[in-house]
Amino acid sequence: MDEVITLSHGNGGTKTSKLIKELFLKKLGNSYLNTLKDGARLNTTGEVCFTTDSYVISPYFFPGGDIGKLSICGTVNDLIMCGSIPKYLTLSLILEEGLGILELEKIIDSIAETAEKAGVKVVTGDTKVVDKGHGHGIYINTAGIGESIPGVFLDESRMVPGDKVICTGNIGDHGVSILCTREKLLEFDLCSDCAPLVELVDVVTKFKHHIKILRDPTRGGVATTLNEFIEESQYSIEIYEEELPIDPKVKYACEILGIDPLYSANEGKALLVVSDEMAQDILSELRKINIFSSSKIIGEVTNEFASKVLLRGELGGRRILDKLSYDILPRIC
Amino acid sequence: MDEVITLSHGNGGTKTSKLIKELFLKKLGNSYLNTLKDGARLNTTGEVCFTTDSYVISPYFFPGGDIGKLSICGTVNDLIMCGSIPKYLTLSLILEEGLGILELEKIIDSIAETAEKAGVKVVTGDTKVVDKGHGHGIYINTAGIGESIPGVFLDESRMVPGDKVICTGNIGDHGVSILCTREKLLEFDLCSDCAPLVELVDVVTKFKHHIKILRDPTRGGVATTLNEFIEESQYSIEIYEEELPIDPKVKYACEILGIDPLYSANEGKALLVVSDEMAQDILSELRKINIFSSSKIIGEVTNEFASKVLLRGELGGRRILDKLSYDILPRIC
Repeated sequence: MDEVITLSHGNGGTKTSKLIKELFLKKLGNSYLNTLKDGARLNTTGEVCFTTDSYVISPYFFPGGDIGKLSICGTVNDLIMCGSIPKYLTLSLILEEGLGILELEKIIDSIAETAEKAGVKVVTGDTKVVDKGHGHGIYINTAGIGESIPGVFLDESRMVPGDKVICTGNIGDHGVSILCTREKLLEFDLCSDCAPLVELVDVVTKFKHHIKILRDPTRGGVATTLNEFIEESQYSIEIYEEELPIDPKVKYACEILGIDPLYSANEGKALLVVSDEMAQDILSELRKINIFSSSKIIGEVTNEFASKVLLRGELGGRRILDKLSYDILPRIC
Repeated sequence: MDEVITLSHGNGGTKTSKLIKELFLKKLGNSYLNTLKDGARLNTTGEVCFTTDSYVISPYFFPGGDIGKLSICGTVNDLIMCGSIPKYLTLSLILEEGLGILELEKIIDSIAETAEKAGVKVVTGDTKVVDKGHGHGIYINTAGIGESIPGVFLDESRMVPGDKVICTGNIGDHGVSILCTREKLLEFDLCSDCAPLVELVDVVTKFKHHIKILRDPTRGGVATTLNEFIEESQYSIEIYEEELPIDPKVKYACEILGIDPLYSANEGKALLVVSDEMAQDILSELRKINIFSSSKIIGEVTNEFASKVLLRGELGGRRILDKLSYDILPRIC
């Protein structure tokens, strides 16, 4: 095979075929993808969830993952956040002329490994090549189909005062580690939390009536995501500062860099709004799962204001948390 | 609204929300998209087709369309080529910092108009912004779900000698017109054929047992697509040169530019392999439809060789047509 990607790999002819057969089918092949048709025929039953994301992260290799792993995790997690079981993904690559084939191979390996772990199949795809200077190595789009978990109804309208907000682990890891890697800042051993959250499916299935909202706080971080929960609501969400799970290294890095971890991106965490009644049971169930072992109740829904997120400090003082409005860091995912 | 796209439009915060609400929802809104969730919940019945394509065409405005129209047509057509009725699309944008908002608005208008014409809904999406110098204005990915047309089975294995190859109109228009526009060559009034081929659904439904293969000859053109039909087959396809429908202006442009229209991309044409028995009936049905009025039988399946596409010239001489192996033009779609 060639050593670098050339424009011919994107022309739809012999070089494109060779790349598809010798790299993509070899690593990702399955009965759907192997047909090499314009699309895949799938059997679905009833209601499905449908989602998409493009990934433009820089750098595309980072501590804890790469753009390939991220492109599977991000879309798998979006399907779970809709209350569905991830099943089928598409994979569309925009490669920049000059990308090393070995780099591409490493990314495809990550995709294969993460898809396997998440229980999803890549069923169809597309490859485009852009001329040098009009991309950044590799951009990836994945779209996904998940089968809805019966009886799950996730909607902001279900929130009532007293509901608890659970965070499934330490916040801000992805954003801070990407920033430090990209800008070669600080010599901490930081790592992205990028992971497929498939174990959430069992928890959602078990506690379906008591889980009201489920969302992954990616771009914009926990503060922006919580704002999305209440922006159309008559209620507010109050967060307890002392309960926020933050890795001490991330906390320290944030202090030095002047970043608020509440606005730093996560790629392997979820926020749940759950009924007060079952909050402790759901928390216990989550903590039994390795990846969610540091889950905490970080706040609650109140009826004090409409559409506000408030952070209550350790001494009792409160301040409003808005959506992210400035730029911590572009191309975080 | 701002005049140009900035990195803040991609940070997932207030500027991203504003762009989504004031531009995307305004133009493309529907009950699915309006929920602004991580994905859309859809009711499907039984078998679906699932496809994706990224669009990186340069220039992104061209005679006969723009990248927005193309991104809907391409994915809608892929769903039809799988034997399904296009229903739902995702829309994922990779915008380059500095793209004019008016340009973006024009592209979103095209998307809205084409989706309406094709009978599909944009149900979920994603917006990313890359820093100046790492994109080319706008790249688009669309993924699509179509509902399988019952009883349709499109597969190369169904070909037998005597089957006819139908082409639904003039070939090569898209590739030649993009080349002339991009390189500012020739002052012909050339135009891309970019169009959603939704009227094919009725033809496929009516003649389902007699249509064996259906494919749109995009990148790589008619010659490359025909090669895909027979590469795993014991049969060959023979094409009659004098029957190839080619616009005289495209033919002339190809002669001057040294391009073979058989390898030039199309974005609004289909190739069908159909039973000999019903070939004339299918042709008549196609010709009744405005967009397919210049359909022709351009060749047939023979058992003379295995896995070859042959072009029979007007004087009876024949030559082998291979897949595209050189580069006529990168970034054609």
